Amino acid sequence: MPDFAEPIARLIDELKHLPGIGQKTAQRLAFHILRTDAEEALALAQAIRDAKEKIRECTVCNNITDTDPCFFCSSATRNRKTICVVEEPHSIQAIEKTRQFGGLYHVLGGALSPLQGVGPEQLKIKSLIERLKGGVEEIIIATNPNAEGEATAVYLSKLIKPLGIKVTRIGVGIPVGSDLEYADEITMLKAIEGRREL
Amino acid sequence: MPDFAEPIARLIDELKHLPGIGQKTAQRLAFHILRTDAEEALALAQAIRDAKEKIRECTVCNNITDTDPCFFCSSATRNRKTICVVEEPHSIQAIEKTRQFGGLYHVLGGALSPLQGVGPEQLKIKSLIERLKGGVEEIIIATNPNAEGEATAVYLSKLIKPLGIKVTRIGVGIPVGSDLEYADEITMLKAIEGRREL
Repeated sequence: MPDFAEPIARLIDELKHLPGIGQKTAQRLAFHILRTDAEEALALAQAIRDAKEKIRECTVCNNITDTDPCFFCSSATRNRKTICVVEEPHSIQAIEKTRQFGGLYHVLGGALSPLQGVGPEQLKIKSLIERLKGGVEEIIIATNPNAEGEATAVYLSKLIKPLGIKVTRIGVGIPVGSDLEYADEITMLKAIEGRREL
Repeated sequence: MPDFAEPIARLIDELKHLPGIGQKTAQRLAFHILRTDAEEALALAQAIRDAKEKIRECTVCNNITDTDPCFFCSSATRNRKTICVVEEPHSIQAIEKTRQFGGLYHVLGGALSPLQGVGPEQLKIKSLIERLKGGVEEIIIATNPNAEGEATAVYLSKLIKPLGIKVTRIGVGIPVGSDLEYADEITMLKAIEGRREL
């Protein structure tokens, strides 16, 4: 006896491929899609198709975009002397939300991870070095503050500093609004190391 | 300045219409869809379309199905003398998982809720009464154990008992495997009320 009719089972199965979506959540989403009006469900299906068809990588910075070059690379008002290096495109949005960074971006497509077979060749490092020739004065490395992100930051720093370009790393420490009581020891250590004079 | 390219923003927006999916999760899912290979993403889009196009309501029991009558109503081996009444189609799967119920189902499409404008007319009660003429001996009311579900159970019981048909209600109490310490007082009360002789 089948638990669900075939089209429902297949929808649940496809939804389960999404990150963080298990059997229960997939069922809940599938039943929602079945209950909702056809227009809304088909709008979701169409949005998935459109996103896959229209979104590509910017040939300059590797950000995902529907125009090439992307919004940032083609902007006349962004500061072209500073490039912020991130692992993945979604990091860009986190930085843009601060409204304090007016420079360009460069998406590496990941971080160095020898165990997972990710070496410098697998990342968009060559194209970053190419971009440095255009009068870049500072590289801000905003890879994630974990082992792979730190290794990538050190690697890039050794590569870029000799070119006479300033290389900086985003600050690591206790998040604003949180309580020291809940900070893990490594973050706490980094926060002390990264202390500033008042 | 847009946070995301239009197709990404639209995909995030459509994903946010799903239950339990907020901005952050929608972004995570959208970026996953963009990262994944085209085939898998389009399979999800197609599964949504297919589910909406092929799935309809069973004209007998209102279960969602790709055949009409549905799997249960058209089965030759199910016991046609017992009908289990549920609020929504997904309740059927929870009951089927026990492998102990061999009867038919009837989906009401909700529960009585005067505050939300759901009266007997809005539920599939008339068609349930019609079905009782076919030699049904027992109605098991498996609406949810909350105010609306209980009200619906009482309403159906008053309607069906006079027809000489046995009406039962699923047991309410402490879930198997849980600890009494964590039971809320209403569940505890119901568990005591629903005690059985050993």
